[in-house]
Amino acid sequence: MPRLRLALAQSNPLVGDLAGNAEQIVTAARAAAQQGADLLALGEMALTGYPIEDLASRPSFLIDAGAAVTALAARLEAEGLGALPVVVGHPDGPHEPRLLGTSNAPTAIAQNCASVLQHGRVVARYAKHHLPNYGVFDEYRIFIPGDELLVLRLGGVDVALIICEDLWRDGGPVGRVLESDAGVLLVINASPFERDKDEVRLPLVTRRARETSTVVAYVNIVGGQDDLVFDGDSVVVDERGAIVARAPQFVEHLLVVDVDAAEAADTELPPNVRRVELAGGGHGSTRTESGFAAAGTSEGSLGLRPIAVPAPDDREQLWNALVTGTRDYVRKNGFRSVILGLSGGIDSAVCAAIAADAVGAENVYGVSMPSRYSSDHSRSDADDLADRIGLNYSVEAIAELVQPVETQLALDGVAAENLQARIRAIILMGLSNMHGHLVLTTGNKTELSVGYSTIYGDSVGGFAPIKDVPKLLVWELARWRNEHAIARGKTPPIPENSIAKPPSAELRPGQVDQDTLPPYEVLDAILEAYVDRELGRDDVVALGFEAETVDFVTRLVDRSEWKRRQGAIGPKISGMAFGRDRRMPITYRPTR
Amino acid sequence: MPRLRLALAQSNPLVGDLAGNAEQIVTAARAAAQQGADLLALGEMALTGYPIEDLASRPSFLIDAGAAVTALAARLEAEGLGALPVVVGHPDGPHEPRLLGTSNAPTAIAQNCASVLQHGRVVARYAKHHLPNYGVFDEYRIFIPGDELLVLRLGGVDVALIICEDLWRDGGPVGRVLESDAGVLLVINASPFERDKDEVRLPLVTRRARETSTVVAYVNIVGGQDDLVFDGDSVVVDERGAIVARAPQFVEHLLVVDVDAAEAADTELPPNVRRVELAGGGHGSTRTESGFAAAGTSEGSLGLRPIAVPAPDDREQLWNALVTGTRDYVRKNGFRSVILGLSGGIDSAVCAAIAADAVGAENVYGVSMPSRYSSDHSRSDADDLADRIGLNYSVEAIAELVQPVETQLALDGVAAENLQARIRAIILMGLSNMHGHLVLTTGNKTELSVGYSTIYGDSVGGFAPIKDVPKLLVWELARWRNEHAIARGKTPPIPENSIAKPPSAELRPGQVDQDTLPPYEVLDAILEAYVDRELGRDDVVALGFEAETVDFVTRLVDRSEWKRRQGAIGPKISGMAFGRDRRMPITYRPTR
Repeated sequence: MPRLRLALAQSNPLVGDLAGNAEQIVTAARAAAQQGADLLALGEMALTGYPIEDLASRPSFLIDAGAAVTALAARLEAEGLGALPVVVGHPDGPHEPRLLGTSNAPTAIAQNCASVLQHGRVVARYAKHHLPNYGVFDEYRIFIPGDELLVLRLGGVDVALIICEDLWRDGGPVGRVLESDAGVLLVINASPFERDKDEVRLPLVTRRARETSTVVAYVNIVGGQDDLVFDGDSVVVDERGAIVARAPQFVEHLLVVDVDAAEAADTELPPNVRRVELAGGGHGSTRTESGFAAAGTSEGSLGLRPIAVPAPDDREQLWNALVTGTRDYVRKNGFRSVILGLSGGIDSAVCAAIAADAVGAENVYGVSMPSRYSSDHSRSDADDLADRIGLNYSVEAIAELVQPVETQLALDGVAAENLQARIRAIILMGLSNMHGHLVLTTGNKTELSVGYSTIYGDSVGGFAPIKDVPKLLVWELARWRNEHAIARGKTPPIPENSIAKPPSAELRPGQVDQDTLPPYEVLDAILEAYVDRELGRDDVVALGFEAETVDFVTRLVDRSEWKRRQGAIGPKISGMAFGRDRRMPITYRPTR
Repeated sequence: MPRLRLALAQSNPLVGDLAGNAEQIVTAARAAAQQGADLLALGEMALTGYPIEDLASRPSFLIDAGAAVTALAARLEAEGLGALPVVVGHPDGPHEPRLLGTSNAPTAIAQNCASVLQHGRVVARYAKHHLPNYGVFDEYRIFIPGDELLVLRLGGVDVALIICEDLWRDGGPVGRVLESDAGVLLVINASPFERDKDEVRLPLVTRRARETSTVVAYVNIVGGQDDLVFDGDSVVVDERGAIVARAPQFVEHLLVVDVDAAEAADTELPPNVRRVELAGGGHGSTRTESGFAAAGTSEGSLGLRPIAVPAPDDREQLWNALVTGTRDYVRKNGFRSVILGLSGGIDSAVCAAIAADAVGAENVYGVSMPSRYSSDHSRSDADDLADRIGLNYSVEAIAELVQPVETQLALDGVAAENLQARIRAIILMGLSNMHGHLVLTTGNKTELSVGYSTIYGDSVGGFAPIKDVPKLLVWELARWRNEHAIARGKTPPIPENSIAKPPSAELRPGQVDQDTLPPYEVLDAILEAYVDRELGRDDVVALGFEAETVDFVTRLVDRSEWKRRQGAIGPKISGMAFGRDRRMPITYRPTR
């Protein structure tokens, strides 16, 4: 069997940053060439970042992206890397619009492509066939589907090339891989992280390997892009579905691995398959083991032997996703520091810990903003948190700021409660405007679901680290993060009292969340059924919850859509995050 | 030629309000029956409202909608209206999911249908074939396409039935209408208003009439639903494309019209066409003219003679769209009153006038919130506006509220300017919380484009009446509204001084917009090219603008996406409104 040395690069692109993204690709190509790779593959849209959204409808953007592909091929050649075939994802266009729309609305003029660069040229190109248009994806909106499978012949092996969603659907290009007698199936991806997604993705990869009798090489981008976090987790499995090598999650990485694949034969190709012969490449079946050692292993690489990185604990994966999403939002948008209100409660404590892990405690500014209703522990728990994390800490009492407004407008009740939250927002935004900090907002998914927050109050901020984390999971992650610190001999960042005490907005004397809301065990379970699983009211009641409670909760969810629409984005970690995943009307009368 | 009496009902549905929407349909059926109609048609999704967005992925919603169809058929029969065939739009499902998605993301389980109700039953059903998935539309995301054209045989005439987008695309069902020998092409629609859309829509209808040799009956819903405004403008054109009857825009209306159509023949049907014979109906070719008079014309109806309502002046259409969108957002979300800040400037003046036209001046609360930097005219122009419109007016000075925050936090520069806007926001939100008014935010499209506003300051509110109106058009509409008043002997609502004076945010002494921004004539032209027409930076420069100005403006647009994401919704009147029309990343480095 011929042997190919494959290099899969998990790069972390920034949407639109053609120069920066190309730099990452060149760096990967240098390392791959140094390690003697026969083929380097990067993720879907690695050159432009993903998702590009309606930039795909802007002809000038497509022209710039096309020029960047050409320039990248020339640059690789100029740097002496031209012999290495590099597979890189990018949009291609502008093409003739696919549809005649009803107006000047954007219509698809682009394809989602993978180009193969070699010797300074684009030697082959594949266009994605299946365009996901559900959940967070709008690809049918912006892309024209391709209709031809590409097979690259390299070093005696046929490598079939497809993109992301193509792997998930029966039929289309994946259906032609077996008939094409390909030895390797290369899939380039921009597959966002979701809780337990590795439990779906990996079995799919192994199933496709067996179905198509190929070695499957799956490469995914990493990093945060707005509300999405890409986890990498690139993997190579053999024809029997066994893991050959797996890259770590959430970090940039070059995975280099030797695979033995079926020798290419000159069988007749099925329709809609194109074969392109690449120059050079291939170590042949006679290559000796010592050859691997000579190629060396660069730092951070998994090397060439079959090594699998075990996926970390579920809570660790979630924590890493939140940290990655937060870090990349800060960094990619040019911020250096973040600011957030510290209430002494669990949500702000967890957000502060995420922020510190993301950008370093020295770049985190925490502000305690006690009111006349604040308990002693709200102040002392915030102090304790700041100490434990080592963040920049200040106290701004709000009573003197609230009182003049309350008096002048004669506010009371809920209006007066909201006023306190809004004065706090003014403080955070004022400090942000003075010092350039990004404001983090600390609301969790449960709060967002039922609208248990003050709009333009505690909801203000550019990024919401735990917006997709239900309250019970916030506690669970807090406990995990502390245990994780203890296991490493570090100070647990989150005060035990913030975890243990009953949650309260402290907007009136003695208030606790459970005055207004059902117990979080019940609330989160109802929300999971109604929001995440899209069950109807009756179906939720049938799960065993009180009808009255279900009606109360679902009504709050339906009525809070306007607030959610005006909320900050934050990292998606569930299968149904608020935002692009769940598109609901504001103006809506529930059917019952 | 046989003659059919068609009734087209422009109803104003509310998404999810199955009972209320059904009530509108029954009312229309009663009036149509009274006028001797042979067939009544309502708009696309008239039973559930449009767009239902991801409610289409919720099985319980589809089951409820299905039950409402059945109940409506039974109710019509019970009320003695069963003989009249009623064509009504609704979602149908749940069906087996169309796609195997990558996760638990919503997949299409519904069809976008038109059901024909007669004698207490659903006698025929058509599923929309072409699913728009561009601009504001996400139908490919949520619906499974149909594949069969429906022809209803009624009173000796074959009536082909299609839905909205089906009319716009060559091929598919509209391609089979000619071969089917249908005499009438009935199209039910939920087609949102856009500036100049009537100039596209009407020529399309007339072209299709000539192409298919049919009388085309086009019925559209009316009213506001979140950011969309449906304008009705239902129309009937004959086989030669001449307008037979046209309904007024933006108002509920029953258009009843007699059409002479080709007699049905028993030609063989082309593939993918189903013909269903309806009971009764048809006035036959011998029906006398006196029969029409006997049928009567109900109030508000255009009657049975070929009457065409001329579409109003462009500015009047735009004004009506803004008023309709605002009125329906207020009404459908259960508000009775609105509140807004009155700065003495043109934007808040126009918003106040729209609000008064929408919900009555007695339900509009205007608050002047002068600061130490406010000019005398800002106060006097606000007074004048309040007088002219007759709205509820109050003054809340902000200096005493700003000062304590400014001092405590040592704010200056932009931070201090924003603080003033945020204190105003706190006042409006406080009064809203106390009195239940909906807060209107008065930003225009130009401001939104370049981020010339204070987030959590002047941007706060549940609805933004002029968010899709560029600054120059704001002035134009103000002048038109005043002229419109004068022409009717009424008081012009907008103070001449608010129109004439140079615009200013008045956040520092002597500030005017043009200190920071290019002249609005230049700015709006650049924005139209960059945002609406999606031209690239170089293409905009090629139009003749200074490169430096183009770079300055486009950079502001790109950097303001995070603010726009957190902004209120408002009525779409252009082909490219911020929101669902234009989906852009926040995290984004422009290519140049």
